[in-house]
Amino acid sequence: MDTLDRLAIHTMTTKPWDLPTACAKYAAAGVPGVGVWRQWLDGRPLSESRTILDDHGLKAVSVVRGGFFPYLDETGRREAHEDNVRSLDEAAAIGAPQVVLVCGARPELSLTENRKQITDGIAYLIDHASSVGVKLAIEPLHPMYADCRSAINTISQCNDMIDQLGEDWVGIAADVYHIWWDPQLAQEIKRAGKRIIGFHVCDWVTPTNDFLNDRGLMGEGCIDNRGIRQLVESTGFEGPIEVEIFSDRHWVSDQVDYLEKIITAYREHV
Amino acid sequence: MDTLDRLAIHTMTTKPWDLPTACAKYAAAGVPGVGVWRQWLDGRPLSESRTILDDHGLKAVSVVRGGFFPYLDETGRREAHEDNVRSLDEAAAIGAPQVVLVCGARPELSLTENRKQITDGIAYLIDHASSVGVKLAIEPLHPMYADCRSAINTISQCNDMIDQLGEDWVGIAADVYHIWWDPQLAQEIKRAGKRIIGFHVCDWVTPTNDFLNDRGLMGEGCIDNRGIRQLVESTGFEGPIEVEIFSDRHWVSDQVDYLEKIITAYREHV
Repeated sequence: MDTLDRLAIHTMTTKPWDLPTACAKYAAAGVPGVGVWRQWLDGRPLSESRTILDDHGLKAVSVVRGGFFPYLDETGRREAHEDNVRSLDEAAAIGAPQVVLVCGARPELSLTENRKQITDGIAYLIDHASSVGVKLAIEPLHPMYADCRSAINTISQCNDMIDQLGEDWVGIAADVYHIWWDPQLAQEIKRAGKRIIGFHVCDWVTPTNDFLNDRGLMGEGCIDNRGIRQLVESTGFEGPIEVEIFSDRHWVSDQVDYLEKIITAYREHV
Repeated sequence: MDTLDRLAIHTMTTKPWDLPTACAKYAAAGVPGVGVWRQWLDGRPLSESRTILDDHGLKAVSVVRGGFFPYLDETGRREAHEDNVRSLDEAAAIGAPQVVLVCGARPELSLTENRKQITDGIAYLIDHASSVGVKLAIEPLHPMYADCRSAINTISQCNDMIDQLGEDWVGIAADVYHIWWDPQLAQEIKRAGKRIIGFHVCDWVTPTNDFLNDRGLMGEGCIDNRGIRQLVESTGFEGPIEVEIFSDRHWVSDQVDYLEKIITAYREHV
């Protein structure tokens, strides 16, 4: 049986819990890592959030999320950039090694234009990422989000972008929910190699009734979490395994029971 | 302005109309082609459906749909095959040159197994397709359907399959709804060349609220229908352009008005 050494949970997974509660519960259950969504940092100084994590012996493995690069005017471009700079500063402040990028998309723009603006937006962030020592993790999103959440939809695209951007400060967050169906998955993960710096798990349930908040716990659906983990680890990846589940169904359940189920599912299916 | 010579409409697009009504309305509006869903053939001899089409001067451009190859046992495999044979016979009987294949997927099976069963299932149909003179058009489905509707999700996969299966009786039905997001679209349509034997149009609306029945009329969403048409026609494709829209919103509207809107949208956006 796996130890829990590599397990991390995104605060969004246990959405009803605020940061102090989530940290207390995760620590008590032996979960060492936290994927910190930025909303969970609101309302207190960053140093205080850092203290909450530290006091529980927890490690912030990622800040979620930056991105949303495409813009309609220069003000939009600048605001997106400034928000991304802040996300990098927040990550640095709480000791997280990476910001996960949901790259964005605007249905008013062509895919080509969306993708160009994303690549340019990331390029323009690299200096700041380097200066604060935080990596940018591009998360390809499922093609069902290509209209308004991300025009970056496959590991292949990420590889093409990183060929351009360089891999010192830009990597890939591979989330099984978005990539499990991809017939080129094995070859593109292999091509990515050490560019894979994040690995997120959950499941795809049948039927899926909501575009956003109907993800399953690992084992509830059809994703081969263990198989994809093996592909990712064959690149040399030894980082945290982050449980990121958006689920109205699970959010209304008792979160302490749910945390136990997450740990069991991690042991049995990842 | 385009003439309507190449316009075809799927009976499912105007779901409230039965076959005689749809044919009368399409013909009156100058629409020459019909994508015939098999449910619209139920309840009368095939020869009678053929007569309804002929009497209105209409051409069946496709029968929709065959496929659903993956199975859990030998009975399932045989039943799928027999149903696909029937779909080919139905197409031959009403003069349709192709059956559109929604290939199927079972969440209980691995993607690898689903894809193998699909390829084997199509291979096993080719003799019958050849004997009745009806082509098999593989329709790659959007990756959001990879769990239970089709494990074939990109033109690239279709090309790989047809490399194996041969292209005399197997082609590709390219539906913009499923492929618009694909970063490899241009290169894979080019690679497909004359394998593209069907072209379906509609739109992707933002937000999309239902996994199945929230498609848009061309121009209502973010799909570059005209751009994809150009890619498809650059392969030499001169076949029908089939309007295939599943929309609860449009189905409850006045279907005569809707048919006018379809024609206008076809002229302005395709």
